Parts: sequence; C-alpha cells; structure tokens
Amino acid sequence: MAEEAKKRAAFAAVDKHVQNNQVLGIGSGSTIVHAVQRLAERVKEENLTIVCIPTSFQARQLILQNGLTLSDLDRNPELDVAIDGADEVDSDLNLIKGGGKKSDSLGEQWKKGVPIEVIPMAYVPVTKALTKKFGGVAELRMAVNKAGPVVTDNGNFILDWKFDKVHEWREVNSAIKMIPGVVETGLFIDMAQRVYFGMEDGSVSVREKPPC
Amino acid sequence: MAEEAKKRAAFAAVDKHVQNNQVLGIGSGSTIVHAVQRLAERVKEENLTIVCIPTSFQARQLILQNGLTLSDLDRNPELDVAIDGADEVDSDLNLIKGGGKKSDSLGEQWKKGVPIEVIPMAYVPVTKALTKKFGGVAELRMAVNKAGPVVTDNGNFILDWKFDKVHEWREVNSAIKMIPGVVETGLFIDMAQRVYFGMEDGSVSVREKPPC
Repeated sequence: MAEEAKKRAAFAAVDKHVQNNQVLGIGSGSTIVHAVQRLAERVKEENLTIVCIPTSFQARQLILQNGLTLSDLDRNPELDVAIDGADEVDSDLNLIKGGGKKSDSLGEQWKKGVPIEVIPMAYVPVTKALTKKFGGVAELRMAVNKAGPVVTDNGNFILDWKFDKVHEWREVNSAIKMIPGVVETGLFIDMAQRVYFGMEDGSVSVREKPPC
Repeated sequence: MAEEAKKRAAFAAVDKHVQNNQVLGIGSGSTIVHAVQRLAERVKEENLTIVCIPTSFQARQLILQNGLTLSDLDRNPELDVAIDGADEVDSDLNLIKGGGKKSDSLGEQWKKGVPIEVIPMAYVPVTKALTKKFGGVAELRMAVNKAGPVVTDNGNFILDWKFDKVHEWREVNSAIKMIPGVVETGLFIDMAQRVYFGMEDGSVSVREKPPC
C-alpha cells in the first residue's frame, strides 16, 4: 500500500473516532505513525484532553515524540478507542497483524503468513505442533540489525506461519493459542469494529462490522 | 503433603517410567527435587543414557547439580516421559500446578487459586477480564526477596486467581488463554497420564487416565 494511502486511512480513522476526554489505544507499525501525527494535530488545534496507551516501545516513543499524554493499562485499563494498522482484512473484519514488513498490495501479507509470538524455549515444539496440526511451514523470524532471531518487546520470538490454505480462522486461532509456549498470534478475530482502506484513487473506503 | 510422602511418590514415578535411552522432561517445584535425586541414582547404578530437558532455571540447576545430561527443546523437541509435581489433581487427572508454595493437604491449593502467567503490561486488563467473566479475585503474586511482583523465568508476572466456585475447567482454561496478555495457566487439562500420590500411611497410590 502506498504511504499516502495509509496516511489517508489513518487520518480518516482519527478524524472520525477521536473525541475529547478519551483513553486511546495506540497500535504499532507503519500506519500508526500517521495516526499519531494526526492525533497530535487535533489535540493541539482543538485543545483536546486525550490519554494514550501504547502497545509497544515504538508506540510509546511516537506518543512522547508527538507531545501526547502517555499512560498505561495499569492506570487506564479500559480504552474508549484503539487504533492500529493491519496487514490483511477479511469480509468479517478479521485481521492479520504483525507482519513487520511493508506489504505492497493486499494479498501479499498472506504469503508472509501469520505471526505467532512464542516463549523462546518453546519455538521448536510449537513449530512442530502447529505444522503437524494445520500444515504449512513456520519460520523463526530473523533479526536484521542483530545476529539471530527477532526478539519482541516482551522478550519473545516470532514464528511466521506460512499456511497452505485458508482456514476457519476463529477455530485455528483458538487451537494455536492452546499450544504450550504460544503467547499471542497475529490473528485478530472479532476485535475490529471498523476498517479504513486507503484506495489507489485517493479515496478512503470504510468497512464496518455487520450488526449481530 | 509431608516431604517424605512427596519423596515416595517421586521415587515411584521415576522407578516406573524411566528407561534407558529416553528423553525426559523435568518439571519444577519441590517434588521434582526428589525425582531428580532418584533419577541420578538410577542413571549411576544402571549406567543409563538419559537426556533431560528442563522447564525452568530450577530444573536446569537440578539437572546440572546431579550430573545428568542437559538438553533443550531445540535439540530434543519430543519427550518420551515428562515428570512434574502438581498442587491439585481431580478425578479426570486434570491438574493445578505452579502454586509456588507448600500445600499442607489436598484441598489447600484451591484456596490459593489458579496461577496465570501474564505479560507484565497486561496484568490489570487480564485481572478485570478474568474476574468479570468468571468471578473470584485475582491477585498479583508478590516476590519475597525483592520488592514488587514475582517475575517468572520468562520475564512475566503471575496472577493467582482465587475462584469462588468449581468451574468446567476445560472450557474456562480455553477462555482464559484467549484473553490478550495471558501466556499460560496452571491448569493442566488432559496432559497427565498417571499421577502418584504419597499417602500418609507410607504407601503410594496411583491414579491412571481412564481409557478413551
């Protein structure tokens, strides 16, 4: 996705959903940079009182660099709105997140697979259990500016699971989380309520959760 | 449980299940000390070739102190036998583990609750989600020889969830693991195949998994 399109989607989400006196969850990745930029503009222009809760070191730094009010889940465990980027979105607003790289077009992310955060000592048994049960290939994500694997902000490793078919994701996600050593997955099932897509023609398309 | 009874149970398990050329999982806690002691005796007396995989720093140290062969889940992802202590056992061989303290008699552990390992930044939202959904009280386990909370070998926190009724544990365990920020729980459902109880009269009682 072109950077400008990400920016338009991020701006649209911030403009639509952020109001005064909210507690905001700030996600991670390349799109959130634009969201925090727009948030800072609105806070300044409209003199908003907003508290920001980061999901990562990157989010924390963005909040501080943009002069926003930093808090945490101890002080503000309940969020009014959470804004985050996603790598892939299906028609039910299920997401894949955490690819860690830029995705040129929708569909690319599937080739990189689903990221699975694991306790370091368990990455081999998790790989075996996962691929035995659901097929595909799981690769330990390697770091670029250090030797060895990527280590997450929580001190864990990431497996990129390249699945070989489209699964019933809700069921598969639950089963993966039951494998000992799995911390979280990049599958976000039933969490997003609205998704903004920056389109190539310069517009922003919105997809909403259908009413239950 | 008296130390002697734990010892008898641990010895019985090692004597029954350990054979030459096995890969053994070595659990953590007070009972495992006796199991490793007995294992070292048998390896020496019978000249066994056994590879040991620890679950924790404590287990790793016990393996090294007793002169046993240390390995890990990278080199040996498949275990022949895993031996561990448990705080509580039900009739289906579901376990509660990880209480971290001595339990004087069966039943005491339930009062301490189910330990739940969580990513540090998520302990408040996990506490709220857990008690809202399943009742009871969840307390952050505090350290004794440092200020602040216990930090696990994986760098996480522990919530001790004191539930107020007996639940359908399989279902509850799956639901707890789906709460964002939960790493593992102390509920071991369908994992134990045989449990050894050290009895007060000096005997050892065995409970086996009923055939499916």
